[in-house]
Amino acid sequence: MNQKQFLRPIVDAAALSAPLADYNTADAVEYLNALPLPQATNTLAALSLPRAVKLLEAPELQHAGALIAALPPARAAALLGLMADDRATDIVHELDDAERARLIPLLAPEARRSIQLLLSYPPNTAGALMTTEFVAVPADWTVAQTMQHIREVERSRETVYAIYVLDPHSRQLLQVVTMRRLITGEPEDAILAVAQVNPPVTVNPLLDQEEVAQLIRRHDLLAIPVVDAQQHMLGIVTVDDILDALIDESTEDVHKFGGVEALDKPYMQIGFLEMLRKRAGWLSVLFLGEMLTASAMQHYEDELARAVVLTLFIPLIMSSGGNSGSQATSLLIRSLALRELRLRDWWKVALRELPTGVVLGAILGLLAIVRITIWQLAGLHDYGEHWKLLAVTIGAALVGIVTFGSLSGSMLPFVLKRLGFDPASASAPFVATLVDVTGLVIYFSIAAMILGGTLL
Amino acid sequence: MNQKQFLRPIVDAAALSAPLADYNTADAVEYLNALPLPQATNTLAALSLPRAVKLLEAPELQHAGALIAALPPARAAALLGLMADDRATDIVHELDDAERARLIPLLAPEARRSIQLLLSYPPNTAGALMTTEFVAVPADWTVAQTMQHIREVERSRETVYAIYVLDPHSRQLLQVVTMRRLITGEPEDAILAVAQVNPPVTVNPLLDQEEVAQLIRRHDLLAIPVVDAQQHMLGIVTVDDILDALIDESTEDVHKFGGVEALDKPYMQIGFLEMLRKRAGWLSVLFLGEMLTASAMQHYEDELARAVVLTLFIPLIMSSGGNSGSQATSLLIRSLALRELRLRDWWKVALRELPTGVVLGAILGLLAIVRITIWQLAGLHDYGEHWKLLAVTIGAALVGIVTFGSLSGSMLPFVLKRLGFDPASASAPFVATLVDVTGLVIYFSIAAMILGGTLL
Repeated sequence: MNQKQFLRPIVDAAALSAPLADYNTADAVEYLNALPLPQATNTLAALSLPRAVKLLEAPELQHAGALIAALPPARAAALLGLMADDRATDIVHELDDAERARLIPLLAPEARRSIQLLLSYPPNTAGALMTTEFVAVPADWTVAQTMQHIREVERSRETVYAIYVLDPHSRQLLQVVTMRRLITGEPEDAILAVAQVNPPVTVNPLLDQEEVAQLIRRHDLLAIPVVDAQQHMLGIVTVDDILDALIDESTEDVHKFGGVEALDKPYMQIGFLEMLRKRAGWLSVLFLGEMLTASAMQHYEDELARAVVLTLFIPLIMSSGGNSGSQATSLLIRSLALRELRLRDWWKVALRELPTGVVLGAILGLLAIVRITIWQLAGLHDYGEHWKLLAVTIGAALVGIVTFGSLSGSMLPFVLKRLGFDPASASAPFVATLVDVTGLVIYFSIAAMILGGTLL
Repeated sequence: MNQKQFLRPIVDAAALSAPLADYNTADAVEYLNALPLPQATNTLAALSLPRAVKLLEAPELQHAGALIAALPPARAAALLGLMADDRATDIVHELDDAERARLIPLLAPEARRSIQLLLSYPPNTAGALMTTEFVAVPADWTVAQTMQHIREVERSRETVYAIYVLDPHSRQLLQVVTMRRLITGEPEDAILAVAQVNPPVTVNPLLDQEEVAQLIRRHDLLAIPVVDAQQHMLGIVTVDDILDALIDESTEDVHKFGGVEALDKPYMQIGFLEMLRKRAGWLSVLFLGEMLTASAMQHYEDELARAVVLTLFIPLIMSSGGNSGSQATSLLIRSLALRELRLRDWWKVALRELPTGVVLGAILGLLAIVRITIWQLAGLHDYGEHWKLLAVTIGAALVGIVTFGSLSGSMLPFVLKRLGFDPASASAPFVATLVDVTGLVIYFSIAAMILGGTLL
């Protein structure tokens, strides 16, 4: 910002909104995001209502709740009333109770009712994601009547490309007409004449957003109707809401797989303490689990004292178990999320992971044997007189541990799903911890078998 | 399948297509997927052309390439010509050279040209994802002319909801008109009168699909035009293609983060050898890297022999470094993918991870000190006369290692991006390997400092 701009009084509405005049919505949002909150609020207050609504509706706008809360309540309520109700609900979600109590009574009755309905659904469900602003017409209308209706309500509807045909009496959903089919119809045709032949694909408001996304994708829809048990329409979930939801969900999945509680804000916007809380929890739980490795090691302390050479390979062996486990887990998490595999398919997976693990373990075991042999023969390190037996021990332990890692890594998502958790909660660190303790036991048991009487 | 169905001759077309008659496309695709290839081919051959096209266009259909290759060439070419050209191109991608050479000459010239154009773009780019079947009209047309044109071409266009207005002479893209705006226009209005005010958002054919998705999302589009350097339209990428691409990409990201080469087929469809290849490569590379831990341990073998008690905590300490690293990596991978952070922001992240790592390390260090103290005082294990110094060593090592893990885990995605790799290639096992070797060095250095003269 140059000095001249800096000297402008910040209450000058024209000056404040001037830089935004040439921007499209996405760029204007970026500009607002870069301003400190008080200035961003003043800028938003200086814009025309329709422009401000456009910016507030952009999911990329940060601190939308704080902006609404900082605006004069009458203006804030006007903006919320003009916005798409699903986005308005998202913003109301960000407000604290006092702010909600102040704003909601100021809303127009219709906007208030739909926002209160949407607020009542749990997050990440079709109900929470839907908008109530769709186009519905009675089944006794013609194409021309429908077209005229759409022209009149177009501005207040999130999409007009899917038109829902309701029973004129019971108001139950009968059919869906796409705009494509509508415009090819003759004006005097009955609306049902251009409707799709198949019964409409609908969802229950409590369905998880990931399943909604799968349905939208499978049936190539632009929107999916959300209905109650009596087939009355509650709203629609549009493809762009699903796009946003999927991007958020895949962020969440990567975070979970990395062993962090999902962050709902960009990295740089999370406060220091919040960031600690999101990470310390899991890290401590894993640490407590991993403490069992210390107990396992204590159990083998005598063996360790007699054969220090065994300790040299502990990190190598443990990490191989963890790595093969995290590979298997990542494969199965996605297969379960994409519904390629069902819970009952667990044994098919186990039957595949068993030989896969054995072969992978054999490959790593061979590498280890070659490594030890080369170091020993080239004089790089002396593993003692029983180095051949040691090499065989390491090789055999790797086969056992990688097999165990692959098997348990692939079964963990099934177990979590069976227990009612999200299979994506099976994080790489979680699998590694699970495999580490058992890995040590496998290692020392094999060492006792092969080296008993010589080194041990 | 019951016996009666089994006894039907498999060449009976009516019998083959009969079970599909009542299914919608998605269910029919599931039915076909469950059949062995020869039967699926016969079923597909028995369907009407439009029905077969619908099934082949479903991205969920498996082995579409094998099905097309197994059909009589004339029918295969007819089906490819009738399909959306982007999907037809995907299927041609699955064919081997001989099959392509046999089929492509049989295609109608227009279909052949557009498939050959699409085949020429690298995978995962706007060019590879786009369709050439869009609606474009010259800028001197009226709303009524445009509407009439859409009614005529509707069936052969992937979307008619975005209409591209071209300069009548140069054929450069001037504006975009949405169907929403078109139907609100008066028939005699010029098409430009209902066009959007802002210049159209366009992409280059070589842009990565993830960036295309971000633009579609940011600007809330149903399709985005792909243009060459002279603003001539090459095609459009629609939101449903992006939805498919995003789901594939998030699968790929989870696989990569788990340390597997991305699978392009469902888990159960990957052959045993292919599965081994996808996993053995990374696993072996990580194993070779992890071998450095054995070298590091060898270097400290004397210390280990003198103080076996130190080895008890090696797995615990190493895994804590890996876990904190994989947390940090998962956070930064997503922030970079979502463009929340740029390459130049690396130092801001480093400045945050440093104190975060110190505090997280202190929490774990404290847990470890408490654990050792309890075990020692309760007589569960004897850590020797210097157990207090040992506890301090473990605590201090955890602070050092968790800080190092957080810092290097967060910097790795930046380094990969700087080197031109996908930041999502920073897998949890990769980070763990990176942190393990350094972790050991940190541990033994701190041990030497604190325990030098007593235990060491």
